[in-house]
Amino acid sequence: MERSNNRHHDHLRPLKITRNFTRNAAGSVLIQNGDTHVLCTASIDERVPFHVRGTNSGWVTGEYSLLPGSTVVRSSREASRGRLGGRTQEIQRLIGRSLRSCTDMAKLGERSIIIDCDVLQADGGTRCASITGGYVALVDAVKKLLEQEKIEENPIRFHVASVAVGVSKGEILVDMDYSEDGQADVDMNFVGNENGEFIEVQGTAERNTFDIGQLAKMAELAQASIQQIIKVQKESLASS
Amino acid sequence: MERSNNRHHDHLRPLKITRNFTRNAAGSVLIQNGDTHVLCTASIDERVPFHVRGTNSGWVTGEYSLLPGSTVVRSSREASRGRLGGRTQEIQRLIGRSLRSCTDMAKLGERSIIIDCDVLQADGGTRCASITGGYVALVDAVKKLLEQEKIEENPIRFHVASVAVGVSKGEILVDMDYSEDGQADVDMNFVGNENGEFIEVQGTAERNTFDIGQLAKMAELAQASIQQIIKVQKESLASS
Amino acid sequence: MERSNNRHHDHLRPLKITRNFTRNAAGSVLIQNGDTHVLCTASIDERVPFHVRGTNSGWVTGEYSLLPGSTVVRSSREASRGRLGGRTQEIQRLIGRSLRSCTDMAKLGERSIIIDCDVLQADGGTRCASITGGYVALVDAVKKLLEQEKIEENPIRFHVASVAVGVSKGEILVDMDYSEDGQADVDMNFVGNENGEFIEVQGTAERNTFDIGQLAKMAELAQASIQQIIKVQKESLASS
Amino acid sequence: MERSNNRHHDHLRPLKITRNFTRNAAGSVLIQNGDTHVLCTASIDERVPFHVRGTNSGWVTGEYSLLPGSTVVRSSREASRGRLGGRTQEIQRLIGRSLRSCTDMAKLGERSIIIDCDVLQADGGTRCASITGGYVALVDAVKKLLEQEKIEENPIRFHVASVAVGVSKGEILVDMDYSEDGQADVDMNFVGNENGEFIEVQGTAERNTFDIGQLAKMAELAQASIQQIIKVQKESLASS
Amino acid sequence: MERSNNRHHDHLRPLKITRNFTRNAAGSVLIQNGDTHVLCTASIDERVPFHVRGTNSGWVTGEYSLLPGSTVVRSSREASRGRLGGRTQEIQRLIGRSLRSCTDMAKLGERSIIIDCDVLQADGGTRCASITGGYVALVDAVKKLLEQEKIEENPIRFHVASVAVGVSKGEILVDMDYSEDGQADVDMNFVGNENGEFIEVQGTAERNTFDIGQLAKMAELAQASIQQIIKVQKESLASS
Amino acid sequence: MERSNNRHHDHLRPLKITRNFTRNAAGSVLIQNGDTHVLCTASIDERVPFHVRGTNSGWVTGEYSLLPGSTVVRSSREASRGRLGGRTQEIQRLIGRSLRSCTDMAKLGERSIIIDCDVLQADGGTRCASITGGYVALVDAVKKLLEQEKIEENPIRFHVASVAVGVSKGEILVDMDYSEDGQADVDMNFVGNENGEFIEVQGTAERNTFDIGQLAKMAELAQASIQQIIKVQKESLASS
Repeated sequence: MERSNNRHHDHLRPLKITRNFTRNAAGSVLIQNGDTHVLCTASIDERVPFHVRGTNSGWVTGEYSLLPGSTVVRSSREASRGRLGGRTQEIQRLIGRSLRSCTDMAKLGERSIIIDCDVLQADGGTRCASITGGYVALVDAVKKLLEQEKIEENPIRFHVASVAVGVSKGEILVDMDYSEDGQADVDMNFVGNENGEFIEVQGTAERNTFDIGQLAKMAELAQASIQQIIKVQKESLASS
Repeated sequence: MERSNNRHHDHLRPLKITRNFTRNAAGSVLIQNGDTHVLCTASIDERVPFHVRGTNSGWVTGEYSLLPGSTVVRSSREASRGRLGGRTQEIQRLIGRSLRSCTDMAKLGERSIIIDCDVLQADGGTRCASITGGYVALVDAVKKLLEQEKIEENPIRFHVASVAVGVSKGEILVDMDYSEDGQADVDMNFVGNENGEFIEVQGTAERNTFDIGQLAKMAELAQASIQQIIKVQKESLASS
Repeated sequence: MERSNNRHHDHLRPLKITRNFTRNAAGSVLIQNGDTHVLCTASIDERVPFHVRGTNSGWVTGEYSLLPGSTVVRSSREASRGRLGGRTQEIQRLIGRSLRSCTDMAKLGERSIIIDCDVLQADGGTRCASITGGYVALVDAVKKLLEQEKIEENPIRFHVASVAVGVSKGEILVDMDYSEDGQADVDMNFVGNENGEFIEVQGTAERNTFDIGQLAKMAELAQASIQQIIKVQKESLASS
Repeated sequence: MERSNNRHHDHLRPLKITRNFTRNAAGSVLIQNGDTHVLCTASIDERVPFHVRGTNSGWVTGEYSLLPGSTVVRSSREASRGRLGGRTQEIQRLIGRSLRSCTDMAKLGERSIIIDCDVLQADGGTRCASITGGYVALVDAVKKLLEQEKIEENPIRFHVASVAVGVSKGEILVDMDYSEDGQADVDMNFVGNENGEFIEVQGTAERNTFDIGQLAKMAELAQASIQQIIKVQKESLASS
Repeated sequence: MERSNNRHHDHLRPLKITRNFTRNAAGSVLIQNGDTHVLCTASIDERVPFHVRGTNSGWVTGEYSLLPGSTVVRSSREASRGRLGGRTQEIQRLIGRSLRSCTDMAKLGERSIIIDCDVLQADGGTRCASITGGYVALVDAVKKLLEQEKIEENPIRFHVASVAVGVSKGEILVDMDYSEDGQADVDMNFVGNENGEFIEVQGTAERNTFDIGQLAKMAELAQASIQQIIKVQKESLASS
Repeated sequence: MERSNNRHHDHLRPLKITRNFTRNAAGSVLIQNGDTHVLCTASIDERVPFHVRGTNSGWVTGEYSLLPGSTVVRSSREASRGRLGGRTQEIQRLIGRSLRSCTDMAKLGERSIIIDCDVLQADGGTRCASITGGYVALVDAVKKLLEQEKIEENPIRFHVASVAVGVSKGEILVDMDYSEDGQADVDMNFVGNENGEFIEVQGTAERNTFDIGQLAKMAELAQASIQQIIKVQKESLASS
């Protein structure tokens, strides 16, 4: 089975992470995964949501948006329609849970970090890129808090990165682009860390089902891919 | 590790499915899974959503709501707040995808079936119960269409049922109730069919991570449990 | 004039009140009035609305919803549409006023009781059933407050029950079902107590007018019927 | 018991109806009932609501608003809050039902007349004034349709007018102003026609109950008062 | 070029300002500019918006609405649609900025004055009439504060009035009515004071462009006209 | 008076226009005006708004958003709040009017071009940059229509560019950044074309007034600056 760009079934698209892409947010990362480009910013807010108040611990949350011009057919602006769509809310909740998993909320102190993921250009895999890029923005925001001595210890416990794996015509494919996505029978999103562990697994088989064997193979390919992605995160964070 | 009601780690709660619980909807099922009670109704609408119009095929969608008095602390009514919360939308999308997977849309014809899942009493696992009960309501609505000769062939391709499996203090537990859920490190929802295949897998590890081995064990326990649940569905559907 | 089920013009439909229908709310009542079934729950909230704060007195309010599958043609969910319809708001206000009338707010103390009336199956008279059943749920919630010694004196001053009376083809009919309702010229809802007094009277004659004589006859029939309904409330509350 | 302005219990406030108060709407009436001033306009719309389409008959509907500066404490603008309050919706539905009752929809033809009631100055009884003034605006709009030969026969079947009657310290009072309203135990709104018939009766006794005898007395006083109000409508409509 | 009513290009329409048009608001002004009639009320609110709290200074804001019956084709009610349109928001912001410019917020003290401009009859120039009339209502509200000794010094620094100037078929016209407005190439709104200074200038040339020379001529005509309008304001305020 | 970066009062910030910044929209322009960076995309929609249907002519509209991380203090997402703020609507209307002015709607044919302006980084002057960059995106979208032979003649009549001019401590300054903006007494936005003509003029003097002389000087400086900006647009459009 041929993939676009002569990719093998287990080859990721070229991945590039640019830190400090804009200068006003505490963390600002442009992640380019093939033709999927997402701007991830991390903003610090000294307020916390109601359910965290008075607990001496913090909160991390995510917001997600497709810019109207990011898709081949323009995506109408949710602010104009006056409500967030279901897909957006589902993705926002996934980003938030993923990035809370790696954060020690007590060490963060009673403040929030908000990760905004705005898709500039979409070609499949935008939620995975949002998590992978959002993690780097989160780390940069935390660095600011450490530099400003607002917190004493680094609250980040491990890396978090995400990749999609699918099944298409019986073959397992990693990091599908938009055209591959449209043909796939199964579409699974994995979020993991550098210890080979999972944080989130979300698989959907609206077109065809999958069995335990396929689930295991997808999980293995996802873990190997997540390790490659975390390597790119580490290189990016090591550069000044 | 002791569970409430002396359940073993792989024991489901008592499951009871009552068909024709109310009489106005085409399908109406009260599903009682332990202390979780959900009313699932299926309504036929001769209209279809915009993206399906003119395709000669149908659509199945799900809606979900916690009745305000269903929870120990009253859940405020989303209609009063004027917007659906993220959790509700996430669950609605899951129900819709799960019940579309088993429906041959061409055989359904250009009409919609809407599955409404209203939780009367909540004690954990409401989304799984909604899918399991919603499937039976869907089948009853389809039976009406066949009886009325609006459709010629049964569009239902297989059974769909759902169960949650979690990890708590290192042990894998099936069908956790609300108090167990609050203690769990990992919470996975599986949707499957009678052929041992999966339709949806959604796992969250906000409190602790899990590895491939645990994922495989959870998937196996889920599959075995789903077969038990499908047996209850079949018995219910076999009765008049 | 023949009525369905051979009812006389002044005969109520069979009325059944089931207390403790669900277990999480402080009061939970399933009221079945013929084929109209409403789940009424009463929840205690230690907060009060803004205009009551600091007054040492409480508040009782009502919310109402038709479950989507409760009607022959599915009722779209108001939470999905993002706003409460006018009919819903009109009914909610009626329930709230009716159940506040019998409650001594100073004895209740600065807390709220919220009566949620969710119609499981609709066949006419849902607002009256909501008030009659909501009253029983309110009493059960108050009992909990007394048992928990949160309040010292019973704030309930009298019974509240409601019935609809209409005019159809010149004849006065009590407790019309949905098909009778659609034929009626006048539709009046009465809310009263065990002393033969009224709390609310709401009559509408969109199709035909009525005169003072008819108003008086409708009021008399309503009072007699309300006494019968209060008898059922009392029997239900007397059982454990 | 003394009333402001030395009114007897059965005396109405001075009532003045000014037609053609503004010139763009098909009907435009300023009704001044004591210090309650409402601008009622009637606009013709050649479209009808969905449920009337294709029936060859028309529709009459009402909308109501308190201008922010009309009340002693400013009323916040519902357009700014983004939703209509329950009281507004209750009143709008009352106005609509009342003015539909006197209109032969087949003679009106498939078009709408919208009655907008905007309260310029509020001193109690705004919903009654809206109905009384809205009726005159409706008649003026219908006259335009007759003049323009858009309709052949007058669809107006009878006069519609409205008055509030209350019980305060045991005494029955007609047409209470805002300060009287705040003291009343019972507040009933009656809508009637020139034949001594009722169209709507809405009574609320949040503070104290009332019995059948009081209901009858209030209805009698309301009917007498409605006849006086209809006389003012007739005089206004007789002037050019 | 002929104008309706034989007006010269630099002639204003007849302008009439009626103070105390209603009695509940602190200031209440009916401004009639030709056939454009706007009711401007000023309400005092002892609360201030969030960004002013704790600053010992006040705030002035404006709200604007077209009554549905004010226009030849009925304007649908923004409260019913559930959101303010862009035009309304643009005008509200203009009114607010204009009337804040003349108010010394420190002298006003930590309270708000809200200027509500409700258009009773529209014939072009409603935003200008709102500002001109709103100023007079603001002054009357300030007088109340001075009389009640809530403030010591008059916070009003200068008069504020507004006029529209347009270009139509090459000719510069002042104070266009609705039919002239529809023909104009350029439509500019000027807000100024009695010192010949500007507070706001907003010009739009959707149909044709304008050059610096035309801008200067429009500004001169606007200034002359604003002085005439301020004269009417002064006469109105001088009368008791 | 010293400006940041040693700018003279009439010096613009460095201006850079990058075309084809993303690839899915018909036009995609990153405009960088000093530290203000806006992504402007132009999308073609074969549908038109209701009021244009059936006229054989097209429509151009603009939408604007501050990305949450674009500002020093995070801007909350309007989609999450469920409504567009007044400032956003004011800016969107300005962009739309400006870009409609240069478009021959008959030559565009019955289709829409939507200009989305999403601010990636904000440092003052975002609405002007949106118009200047949006114009280039519009031209690129029109080129696509010409290449695809969907239209025959170029509907673009002239260049459109925009600049802000302010008054600060008595001095007239062009193209103020965010810190200068916060100090300014007057803030005027000019939109013009290459013929020295204006399309929009919007000036606000909330802090201090301005006279006709200052208005003229600001207009002259704006025109000179607009010519410089149009030169940059032309160079960008001349490159392939």
